[in-house]
Amino acid sequence: MTEDLPSPALLPSGLSDLLPPEAAREAALVEAMLAVFAGHGYERVKPPLLEFEDSLLAGSGAAVAEQTFRLMDPGSHRMMGLRADTTPQVARIAATRLADVPRPLRLSYSGQVLRVQGNQLAPERQIPQAGIELIGADSAEADAEVALLGVEALAAVGIGSPSLDITLPTMAPALLDAAGVQGDLRRRLARALDRKDAAAVAELAAIAGPPAIGLAALLTAAGPADRALEALREAELPPEARAIADNAAAIVAAIRARAPALRITLDPVEFRGLQYHVGVAFTLYGPGNTGELARGGRYRSGEEPATGMTLYPDAVRRAAPATPAAPRVFIPLGADPAAAARLRAQGFITVAALSAADTPRQLRCGHILRGHDAAPIEEIA
Amino acid sequence: MTEDLPSPALLPSGLSDLLPPEAAREAALVEAMLAVFAGHGYERVKPPLLEFEDSLLAGSGAAVAEQTFRLMDPGSHRMMGLRADTTPQVARIAATRLADVPRPLRLSYSGQVLRVQGNQLAPERQIPQAGIELIGADSAEADAEVALLGVEALAAVGIGSPSLDITLPTMAPALLDAAGVQGDLRRRLARALDRKDAAAVAELAAIAGPPAIGLAALLTAAGPADRALEALREAELPPEARAIADNAAAIVAAIRARAPALRITLDPVEFRGLQYHVGVAFTLYGPGNTGELARGGRYRSGEEPATGMTLYPDAVRRAAPATPAAPRVFIPLGADPAAAARLRAQGFITVAALSAADTPRQLRCGHILRGHDAAPIEEIA
Repeated sequence: MTEDLPSPALLPSGLSDLLPPEAAREAALVEAMLAVFAGHGYERVKPPLLEFEDSLLAGSGAAVAEQTFRLMDPGSHRMMGLRADTTPQVARIAATRLADVPRPLRLSYSGQVLRVQGNQLAPERQIPQAGIELIGADSAEADAEVALLGVEALAAVGIGSPSLDITLPTMAPALLDAAGVQGDLRRRLARALDRKDAAAVAELAAIAGPPAIGLAALLTAAGPADRALEALREAELPPEARAIADNAAAIVAAIRARAPALRITLDPVEFRGLQYHVGVAFTLYGPGNTGELARGGRYRSGEEPATGMTLYPDAVRRAAPATPAAPRVFIPLGADPAAAARLRAQGFITVAALSAADTPRQLRCGHILRGHDAAPIEEIA
Repeated sequence: MTEDLPSPALLPSGLSDLLPPEAAREAALVEAMLAVFAGHGYERVKPPLLEFEDSLLAGSGAAVAEQTFRLMDPGSHRMMGLRADTTPQVARIAATRLADVPRPLRLSYSGQVLRVQGNQLAPERQIPQAGIELIGADSAEADAEVALLGVEALAAVGIGSPSLDITLPTMAPALLDAAGVQGDLRRRLARALDRKDAAAVAELAAIAGPPAIGLAALLTAAGPADRALEALREAELPPEARAIADNAAAIVAAIRARAPALRITLDPVEFRGLQYHVGVAFTLYGPGNTGELARGGRYRSGEEPATGMTLYPDAVRRAAPATPAAPRVFIPLGADPAAAARLRAQGFITVAALSAADTPRQLRCGHILRGHDAAPIEEIA
């Protein structure tokens, strides 16, 4: 390059180029995860990146309305949005074009979503997603299948021993409702729960009265699922909260039946999860400090019960073990193309000289085609 | 569904959902084509969907400026564009972040591009692309490699016997320049060439004088490459046009050396191709009436010579043979998960019952798990 202008390299904050070999790794990881989903009957859909904002922001889409880029459609003069999440689009497809397909409907997708703003913890504004939606099934088996598919997808890309965190985002609201806690006290309790401030929760719950008093005990019950489920069993819960606890126990049992060794934690009064979750919410972490690799949970897909999981291929890529690169073989000018083709069939990458000036070193080749074979080049660094 | 509102199904014109099984087919085709590119040393990059318009519309990006959606970046208050073509982004990456990688640089990509408007012939506004860029090589071998990789990628997805159409978008301008044809006469000649109106070309070329007179003969020379190259050899061409013809002959010879059976046509005075092509331009068609499956050619990547090819996965999908779907096996409630896993390893799709109400018919399964095997269900339609 004769010029070295820094400015064209500057991308908007939160938007970045994925370079070799990471871009290829990400694509391979996504396809490996989608292959797991396909093996369990999840069929791929591909909604467009842009659609009218009315449909994009309907249902669970409302949760990402503020994060959605808007554009005017010059044809219809209607506003369109760039998707900030894929689930609302899959819900639209299920409710319209696939309305006549018998339920439960198993769908998968992969693609990019765009967000208006990143934040300090997650600055990215373009986020790849790869996910599944299981629509029209409300059993504990359905939630278990979705959680276990996330685990199996991670295993397929070399991430063993993940941990599954389960939260019950409707539990705290159910307890507050049963106690009739409203207004300022409710907001203060929610904030204390959000900060996991046990002292403040205990103090405020005591003011709120009986069914809310359980909040303090449930806050400390967070941890390994068996212990948390036992705390829920022993707690005095109003009927709605009892149903939520029983459902959580059934889902954990269904997961345990198929994956006895999976590490499961349960936080009964955490209400993280996406705003639209109506039952259990899931988060998957890899071993070590990987951050969130996937999120999911139960929601409403239009009028139907649904449960789903979104894996984050960028986080998965950072957590997954690197795969060794195939060796590169230099193909001299005028060499037999069939010999190069045979090497590719054996798993080599062949890089052809395009002029007499091209050298193996310049083309980053550690091997050279000699006769029918790839001979190592000793002098290559 | 209790409600059947038609409106959520309405997408903006030119934007559509890809449903099962087509979405999975497209993804599989893209990965198969990218695997061909990777085998030849093309390394994948993934630029973002959005970037500042200054860099997006620089160089070859100017050709799609009018087709680029613009958005304000709320952080920097600078204008961003949604990419309408991937090549300008790859050029930016090559010139900046990969400036120090020795040339020639082989890069590949796949992803979506968005266009402000479709047209009657091509209404789509979201177009998948899968392509390669070969940057820093200006030999005929480089153009031949790129053209042949397009052919090999199509073969990998079952499209044999494509036809490669070569055009020389700089030939007509070179002849008009040599004849000193300017202004109105040049515009009328260009239009007559564009319409392939031989009579008008002959009439206008006669007015224009000697080097332009060859245009009429070259217009009728379009067809099989050997015949067209012979017409070019016999034509009296000014030096610049002669160089263009010699280059075309060298590229065709390099392609023929590796793919003797490939059908190649050459249209010397057609100037289709993208506006930014500076040497040969390529179009690949499948057998039958498939439409364009790929386009490419020689261009400038920043300050560097470059040649590239973009395959259109949507057109490729329509042209490629269908692959048979894997059989779906119903897994009854409570069945051994290991038995289902063994069936998946054998290539079956397993679809688990999630409640006692789920039936094989409803889950579109032609088989059912019996013991360790997938038993066909006779009564399934």
